[in-house]
Amino acid sequence: MSIKFLPKGGVTSPLGFLAGAARGGIKTQGDDVALIVAENGASAAAVFTRNMVKAAPVLVSAQHAPSATTRAIVVNAGNANCCTGENGLRNARLMCELVAEKISCDICEVFVCSTGIIGHQLPMDKVAKAIAEIEVSRGDEASQKTACAVMTTDLVPKFIAAQREIDGVLITVGGQAKGVGMIGPDMGALDANGLHATMLSFLTTDAKIEKARLQTILEKVVERSFNSVTVDGDTSTNDTCFLLASGAANLEINERNQAQFEELVGAVCIELTKKIARDGEGATKLITIQVSGAPSDLDAKKIAMTVANSPLVKTALFGGDPNWGRISAAAGRAGVHFDAQKLGVKLGGIEVFQGGEPAEFEVVEAEAALKNEDILIEITIGEGSGAWTAWTCDFSYDYVKINAEYHT
Amino acid sequence: MSIKFLPKGGVTSPLGFLAGAARGGIKTQGDDVALIVAENGASAAAVFTRNMVKAAPVLVSAQHAPSATTRAIVVNAGNANCCTGENGLRNARLMCELVAEKISCDICEVFVCSTGIIGHQLPMDKVAKAIAEIEVSRGDEASQKTACAVMTTDLVPKFIAAQREIDGVLITVGGQAKGVGMIGPDMGALDANGLHATMLSFLTTDAKIEKARLQTILEKVVERSFNSVTVDGDTSTNDTCFLLASGAANLEINERNQAQFEELVGAVCIELTKKIARDGEGATKLITIQVSGAPSDLDAKKIAMTVANSPLVKTALFGGDPNWGRISAAAGRAGVHFDAQKLGVKLGGIEVFQGGEPAEFEVVEAEAALKNEDILIEITIGEGSGAWTAWTCDFSYDYVKINAEYHT
Repeated sequence: MSIKFLPKGGVTSPLGFLAGAARGGIKTQGDDVALIVAENGASAAAVFTRNMVKAAPVLVSAQHAPSATTRAIVVNAGNANCCTGENGLRNARLMCELVAEKISCDICEVFVCSTGIIGHQLPMDKVAKAIAEIEVSRGDEASQKTACAVMTTDLVPKFIAAQREIDGVLITVGGQAKGVGMIGPDMGALDANGLHATMLSFLTTDAKIEKARLQTILEKVVERSFNSVTVDGDTSTNDTCFLLASGAANLEINERNQAQFEELVGAVCIELTKKIARDGEGATKLITIQVSGAPSDLDAKKIAMTVANSPLVKTALFGGDPNWGRISAAAGRAGVHFDAQKLGVKLGGIEVFQGGEPAEFEVVEAEAALKNEDILIEITIGEGSGAWTAWTCDFSYDYVKINAEYHT
Repeated sequence: MSIKFLPKGGVTSPLGFLAGAARGGIKTQGDDVALIVAENGASAAAVFTRNMVKAAPVLVSAQHAPSATTRAIVVNAGNANCCTGENGLRNARLMCELVAEKISCDICEVFVCSTGIIGHQLPMDKVAKAIAEIEVSRGDEASQKTACAVMTTDLVPKFIAAQREIDGVLITVGGQAKGVGMIGPDMGALDANGLHATMLSFLTTDAKIEKARLQTILEKVVERSFNSVTVDGDTSTNDTCFLLASGAANLEINERNQAQFEELVGAVCIELTKKIARDGEGATKLITIQVSGAPSDLDAKKIAMTVANSPLVKTALFGGDPNWGRISAAAGRAGVHFDAQKLGVKLGGIEVFQGGEPAEFEVVEAEAALKNEDILIEITIGEGSGAWTAWTCDFSYDYVKINAEYHT
């Protein structure tokens, strides 16, 4: 059975999850604290930013990640609780404590996230007021309210769910994401050395999955989705992605059916990733960059991400200029060894560069293709079978406006 | 004796060099082909872009680099002669041939450079006409005319000379540079694998230096100057730097006096580097980023360049926002392992972040410091003695305008 998307679904679409949000007054308007609850607990997997500067909630959630069961995710928007020292760590722990009391669980069964301004202490009275007021429930409205509460400079909330039958059982994966600036996620498991913005994504499923397997699946899927999107390349101090599995659908994911489940989680993550790029700060276009024929997948990723981050490519796409020269130049500086004579570039399906020389194409056709809101750039390297897809957006006056007028 | 700058000097300031320019009609206006001639020949060192996509003149100049003597550098602006296939290579060689005939030397004694649009064949009739018309001469006017001819989107020509006495002999180093976009130079010697924007810089000196020693000096100096400047991080396909030593001052640079000479070349290169950053596309400010206390110099460079390339840092500086959170976050994503608790940031001499927490400072004072045209960012890592300085500019509406309205 193929994958079916539920465009209005979200984190409460799978069985076993409740969610809600309330306003504490941290943001200038709207709900700003959200809570996702696994009714009877869930096994959980987590990846965190690899930025050396990590926000307090990242450090606290990483301490809670080994817990056998997870009961809740609490998140606030409007303040990143980053570069806030010991006081910040105490506040992140206090957020978990308030939730643990509210739903009667252990503190280490609660994950915490924050997003917003760096370097300011959390207004804990406002956070506590909101946590006390949140009422969690089921249904699309609850999922959407939760997704809205986490928004900062996001223009639209980002949520989706998807379903497929695995071994005759209907399995649902729900998800939400936020983040349109400081977007260049590079997330992995937190290791003993503490190696580990703001992209926050929460995923839920009603499949039953053993914790170690769930972690392996999340790391694999994140690498091909959230870790492959960029708005400005600025990996945040708060990036976090959780995947909670309630087991309420009574199907165990094992060696044999894992690929089908992975594909389902991947489908949700890629949809959320595209929503992030499309809503990138100042973006007018969603750009998909497909690299193939690289020496390895890692090389293909390096090339795709270098093109996706190039200010010259991104401004040209904003201007609607089929400037394949900038694309080729960006590919060439990715740190991957290749023969420029074999390099090929297609823009919106039109071959513009091949065999070291410009292809014959009608500039007006290429310019017309660049007027679309969705633009595909295909780059062929001709050196192997490594392939990768990255997502980005164009670079507009509004990007500068949003980020130059934002004040500390 | 200390170093004395000659602000109006340039490539003809050292003994033994002539220069000139003429208009062929490749650019929309002004001179667009320039010629620098070493009257009696020079030993030469060269570094080229490490971008895998290399323009035809880079490939041809790299073939000519091993020549024991060098007589001339010919350069055109308005067309990069890049991604132009076999025809492009023939044209680059033809440019050398025309110069070799004009000044009676061997083709391999001529270096060639191009800068401008990618993917178009050079209009060789125009190039040939200009080469035939160029009259080379000595003096500041000739140096400046040559520096002007190489400009593309540059608003100002970039030239300087500097002098110091070494072993009782007055030694002069002259230089010129161009480039304000596609600036993220990463130049090195071309190796057998062909590993090797457009930043073009030509340096001359009247010291006498054996070719291998000259190459060592150039590579070392370029790493701490041109390879440490960024406007957009987009390493070009055409970046080239030449250093020609005429020997006309009758002083041999050897093991013992090399450091003094290196310092002199370094002074010229750093002045030219700052001129590039200050004139960066859309720039309103010159930003100097000094990193110290990193595990190694290479680590310090990674951190300095990551901060220098961060769109969030560059837009904040355009907006005059003392956003040390973005600076810390960029430092943390540079791929260098450090303890965020030891990280410190100063903006315009004002301590804004120290020991994992915001420092106490007056926001109005920090904002006032950011109103200057020259801004110093000091970052201390607290993990060793590695240090590096990088130069960049802010990111403005005009950067987007210049690059979105440019059409292929």
